[in-house]
Amino acid sequence: MSNALYERLAARLGPKGYSTDPDVIAPHLIEWRKRYLGETPFMALPASTAEVSDVVKLCAEAGAAITPQGGNTGLVGAQIPKGEVLVSLTRMNAIRSVDPIDDALTAEAGVILHNVQQAAKDADRLFPLSLASEGIATIGGLISTNAGGVHVLRYGMMRELVLGIEAVLPDGRVWSGLSSLRKDNTGYDLKQLFIGAEGTLGIVTAATLKLYARPRAHEVALANVPSPEHGLALLHRVKAATGALSAFEIMDRLSVALVAKNVPSARDPMPEAPYMALLEFEAATAEGLRERIEATLSDAIEAGEASDVLMAENEAQARAFWGVREAVAAGHRAEGAQVNHDISVPVSMTPTFIARAAAAVEKAAPGSRIVAFGHMGDGNLHYTVLHREGSDPALFPGPALTAIINELTVSLGGSISAEHGIGVARIGDFNRFKDPSAIAMMRAVKGALDPKRIMNPRALFA
Amino acid sequence: MSNALYERLAARLGPKGYSTDPDVIAPHLIEWRKRYLGETPFMALPASTAEVSDVVKLCAEAGAAITPQGGNTGLVGAQIPKGEVLVSLTRMNAIRSVDPIDDALTAEAGVILHNVQQAAKDADRLFPLSLASEGIATIGGLISTNAGGVHVLRYGMMRELVLGIEAVLPDGRVWSGLSSLRKDNTGYDLKQLFIGAEGTLGIVTAATLKLYARPRAHEVALANVPSPEHGLALLHRVKAATGALSAFEIMDRLSVALVAKNVPSARDPMPEAPYMALLEFEAATAEGLRERIEATLSDAIEAGEASDVLMAENEAQARAFWGVREAVAAGHRAEGAQVNHDISVPVSMTPTFIARAAAAVEKAAPGSRIVAFGHMGDGNLHYTVLHREGSDPALFPGPALTAIINELTVSLGGSISAEHGIGVARIGDFNRFKDPSAIAMMRAVKGALDPKRIMNPRALFA
Repeated sequence: MSNALYERLAARLGPKGYSTDPDVIAPHLIEWRKRYLGETPFMALPASTAEVSDVVKLCAEAGAAITPQGGNTGLVGAQIPKGEVLVSLTRMNAIRSVDPIDDALTAEAGVILHNVQQAAKDADRLFPLSLASEGIATIGGLISTNAGGVHVLRYGMMRELVLGIEAVLPDGRVWSGLSSLRKDNTGYDLKQLFIGAEGTLGIVTAATLKLYARPRAHEVALANVPSPEHGLALLHRVKAATGALSAFEIMDRLSVALVAKNVPSARDPMPEAPYMALLEFEAATAEGLRERIEATLSDAIEAGEASDVLMAENEAQARAFWGVREAVAAGHRAEGAQVNHDISVPVSMTPTFIARAAAAVEKAAPGSRIVAFGHMGDGNLHYTVLHREGSDPALFPGPALTAIINELTVSLGGSISAEHGIGVARIGDFNRFKDPSAIAMMRAVKGALDPKRIMNPRALFA
Repeated sequence: MSNALYERLAARLGPKGYSTDPDVIAPHLIEWRKRYLGETPFMALPASTAEVSDVVKLCAEAGAAITPQGGNTGLVGAQIPKGEVLVSLTRMNAIRSVDPIDDALTAEAGVILHNVQQAAKDADRLFPLSLASEGIATIGGLISTNAGGVHVLRYGMMRELVLGIEAVLPDGRVWSGLSSLRKDNTGYDLKQLFIGAEGTLGIVTAATLKLYARPRAHEVALANVPSPEHGLALLHRVKAATGALSAFEIMDRLSVALVAKNVPSARDPMPEAPYMALLEFEAATAEGLRERIEATLSDAIEAGEASDVLMAENEAQARAFWGVREAVAAGHRAEGAQVNHDISVPVSMTPTFIARAAAAVEKAAPGSRIVAFGHMGDGNLHYTVLHREGSDPALFPGPALTAIINELTVSLGGSISAEHGIGVARIGDFNRFKDPSAIAMMRAVKGALDPKRIMNPRALFA
């Protein structure tokens, strides 16, 4: 160690509290899809809020920038340092309290989502956030990215599941905003600033999360949907008629075909479906639920909104249905040159988006293959364009297609990043498409709360 | 008019767009309980966002401060000018769109809550915010105060019901943040800053609000609850067992007795109840709902959590049950010297609060009467102390009692203002009880977004 700051940090944190060993640091410097590769001479591994506070104080005094990191599952590069001090929160992994009467759970930033779900379950409660990386992603990262996932339709994004936050501010002060209160109108709701801030305003060290009564009944169905318009009508019907919809996912033909092709042991449950919808339902009691769902889906078939429906007959089948949806990303990742998008539009605009995007892509890069899937219930599609089979991947016009997709999205009132955030990956599009007044306000807030610009300075702004 | 600014404003707004007539302005200067009385030489009545923008630009150029006002139902004085230019949003009263498929409604700031509820109903949807002043309060004010009400338990506060905001910033620029998107992770969620900001960061001119499928079934019950502890157990039971609870209100004996005494035509439906709980349920279908509620309440009686239950047999009876709850404020307002509080504690702490507050009040002012009622399902009590019957109201130690109540609240992890905000009324308590790091952050945000401090400068900060 050649640097006085690193020596001070090491002295404060003790031998377990940091690493300068390249082999130990290496896995923290590479994003899991290998799209972002970083570097840092020093990884802090604080085990307490007081240690995080001191790390930030020492960095602030030295004017050294910090990149906070949780489970390193982010998709936009915000968690990968490029010379900054890396602060990994993984050792702050205590669940501080579970309060079933208050429906509240307080977890430190490094607790893995799955462990929060499990702790809630052990107290006969539900923490509803659920997404593919739940075995790795941590609470701090999920808050800093305002994570979404498959249950947003019923429970909202992470933002709606946070009651209180404890954070270390850019000058090292600790803001103790943990709270299980349901109502508190004493000034600005500061926690909202930290949710989705991608580490640019401070380091979230703990949070009080909202729990729910555990639903006693659970049903999953697959529907063969002739078109996105039919899917939209089906969605609208089941939401109102059942009052129990907790997820509504859509997968186009190619997304499922590529699962069957590329994911070992996967099979296509509805090979004729132009679009397949996965519906999940939850209710406080099983009484009448399945009958109500079956009646609603039968009405939907009669109305032509679905041509066929499979209801999961047991938990294993429900898991198998979800397994297809969860394998979609792996299914097309194997197909070579591609561009992925995480867009949202108003729910009513999803069919329009799918139709117009297909036409625009075909015009710009004829023969390109489209994988359209995602959280249709929230208007959020993970929309991927694959190079034409047999074409030279080097000639695939990925950036041009992304520009087309983004233009279309914004023209429909949509967002170029529904779930994943801006990070370093999408700053260009962010600056291009976001309202200039909004960006000016964000910069003003950033400047006011982090005047030395030491908190994750390459993310969001550049 | 002696002032160049007022002349410029008048020229921009035209004869319908402003008033300097003291008789026209007078009702806007007095809070409905007559606790706050203001003054202003000029009331702007803009009819469009462009007019609001120009009003703010002209004021900003002149360095003149602004107090925005909606329906003038606020309880902490934030909407009453003291020399500032009053900007009444009442003429911005268009509902711009209702989108049943997107479950979204866009309303201008001056639209009265009842009209939003009705427009949603006309489209077979629900806008769930509901509170006593819904026939007068406007969307802009309800957003600026992050209004609560009786359905927070199921649907959250106003904050959770806002999808997008259009606002005029302190320099007059328009921020077009209207959106019906359910997911949008492109930078800080700026609308959160305006929700609950009490007009200190800009003027909300319109908002996109969240709608819901209209519940098809609706039940209301009253329960005779021996104590707050029993009420808490009852609440916990019905939440989980029915999955349909939409309101859980509690009223102590005196709160109901004073309704019977002071509100003409009101009657006490359970004169023996030490505490009365009002429970409301909603569901997508009636099927099984009433049976499920009756079975749950019967279990509660068996467990001793309630000693008696009345289920409303029809809509008229349901309204009558709600009528008692809604009359509670009027019931004790007639009883002379009193202090009112709007506190929240973690739901599990409500019985502790009620017991400790009663003991502390009795010690400080023996014989004082207590009215404890409110949204127990959210841990939010409107807690009033009345002077001892026959005592000299002038000797009633109101401020000392408020200090005791606030100390106790904060010691239990609670909030000194659950619903009503800080305004000008509670700045002292806000400065005393709020985390200094939090206040410092709020001041930094205020300074960054409103450097000239022209937006409602006496509210929140002083």
